Amino acid sequence: MMANAAPEGFEDRVRRSFARQTVMETIGAQIVRVAPGEVDIALPVAPAVAQQHGFVHAGIVSTIADSACGYAALSLMDPGTAVLTAEFKINLLAPAAGDRLVARGKVVRAGRTLSVATAEVEAVSAAGTKICAIMTATIMCVRDRGGLSD
Amino acid sequence: MMANAAPEGFEDRVRRSFARQTVMETIGAQIVRVAPGEVDIALPVAPAVAQQHGFVHAGIVSTIADSACGYAALSLMDPGTAVLTAEFKINLLAPAAGDRLVARGKVVRAGRTLSVATAEVEAVSAAGTKICAIMTATIMCVRDRGGLSD
Amino acid sequence: MMANAAPEGFEDRVRRSFARQTVMETIGAQIVRVAPGEVDIALPVAPAVAQQHGFVHAGIVSTIADSACGYAALSLMDPGTAVLTAEFKINLLAPAAGDRLVARGKVVRAGRTLSVATAEVEAVSAAGTKICAIMTATIMCVRDRGGLSD
Amino acid sequence: MMANAAPEGFEDRVRRSFARQTVMETIGAQIVRVAPGEVDIALPVAPAVAQQHGFVHAGIVSTIADSACGYAALSLMDPGTAVLTAEFKINLLAPAAGDRLVARGKVVRAGRTLSVATAEVEAVSAAGTKICAIMTATIMCVRDRGGLSD
Repeated sequence: MMANAAPEGFEDRVRRSFARQTVMETIGAQIVRVAPGEVDIALPVAPAVAQQHGFVHAGIVSTIADSACGYAALSLMDPGTAVLTAEFKINLLAPAAGDRLVARGKVVRAGRTLSVATAEVEAVSAAGTKICAIMTATIMCVRDRGGLSD
Repeated sequence: MMANAAPEGFEDRVRRSFARQTVMETIGAQIVRVAPGEVDIALPVAPAVAQQHGFVHAGIVSTIADSACGYAALSLMDPGTAVLTAEFKINLLAPAAGDRLVARGKVVRAGRTLSVATAEVEAVSAAGTKICAIMTATIMCVRDRGGLSD
Repeated sequence: MMANAAPEGFEDRVRRSFARQTVMETIGAQIVRVAPGEVDIALPVAPAVAQQHGFVHAGIVSTIADSACGYAALSLMDPGTAVLTAEFKINLLAPAAGDRLVARGKVVRAGRTLSVATAEVEAVSAAGTKICAIMTATIMCVRDRGGLSD
Repeated sequence: MMANAAPEGFEDRVRRSFARQTVMETIGAQIVRVAPGEVDIALPVAPAVAQQHGFVHAGIVSTIADSACGYAALSLMDPGTAVLTAEFKINLLAPAAGDRLVARGKVVRAGRTLSVATAEVEAVSAAGTKICAIMTATIMCVRDRGGLSD
């Protein structure tokens, strides 16, 4: 869909920023893949992130999907910029259950100011892999905003 | 916008179900108000829920907004049913910063199968209150699905 | 929710731009109110805009709601800029039927680059008025883009 | 992503219902492909569907994308049911310009009550083909609702 030209050092930049997202430690999520315009984030299914039926809460599914989208976008942005989510929409297709979730974010439009990324969230168990959610996110590239970077 | 006729015991039902959302203890959220078709959930701003700039992560903002919407819908549903989020969309209007967030969910359409709710999320600090996010959610009422309740 | 300071001549600017949306003549829509940060657009219900059940097609409901949101945003923007819709989401709450629809757009965040607006679409008939759809839209303010204005 | 088992006669059913969407004649759209879980709709770019910059209005882009999603879903539904759009979200990625648009709808979850479909809208010109919009839609399957079919 697009030629992704990632600036040098993009993987380091994404991984360092992810490491500063302290919420990821709280929920147990890890970044598992960084490529130009693509980022995967994994999360073990556990009671600490569950809703009332024992599935992973839709908001926590959103947390890893949003970061996968945002970092997919950041991987293509010029140095010295920062990334902010303007909005996203998520559809829950199946229970977020099993052993772990993997959110796979991918840029579909890389713009100077606005990027659009999509994510599929897979629910992985011994029985196989099933897509449990899909997200579309609008990501803003912020320049010269005091104190914000990456 | 609508006449909300909540079944007897709706507040108990909502509070008990919220208490089973173990993720809420993980992030530190509390249910602070339950009325027919309306539910408020509060969350202290803390590093445990932060993204890389120190604001509350958009996914965690979504977590309290989605539950506020879902429980607003559940408060109007017949006994013996369960609630599932089909999808939601959130716009982030301002940094989710300050002392605490309050997500105020409200039903705008209560249907037999599908309900629609909206939430405003306020960022509260000594300096005042500011709306930092708005959500629209589509909530499904599930009947006779083995094992799912409330 | 916000103090809307509209630049001088905002109403003229909005009405002139709307008059250039040739699709509005095709579907029969008219702009019926312009205020700072608020625009209403009306559409008679007719076979020319119907889907298979005789209701107004969701895409046509979106057409008037999107323009109501976009022009609500444009009413607050600096002269010399242009408005583009980045994305929107619409929930259909009830059949878009009756005599006419009125989309009421309202800015909830007016930013230098991104604005967010919401719209309610009312279905008006002899029997009364009912909200049949709600939209949230993200609107981009474009500067110095050759050929684009208002 | 899924095995689509379309009931016998699905193509006829979809084409007949599309023919009843009188708005499609108004805007000049045609259904150009029907497969199990997949429907394409094409629209010539013309002043009759333009917004103020001469591009196809986002609401008209939504009109063909929503019908592509809805009919993709209907192609998999049991006879005797009807299809209604509960909600959709669309991101505009590039100007809807060129010679014609083609909306390609595809079911990603076919449920008894709710289906989810996505659409890509291509802008086709002599210079090539570019994706100008992406949609995610939630489609409801309606049973036993007096007067509604297909």
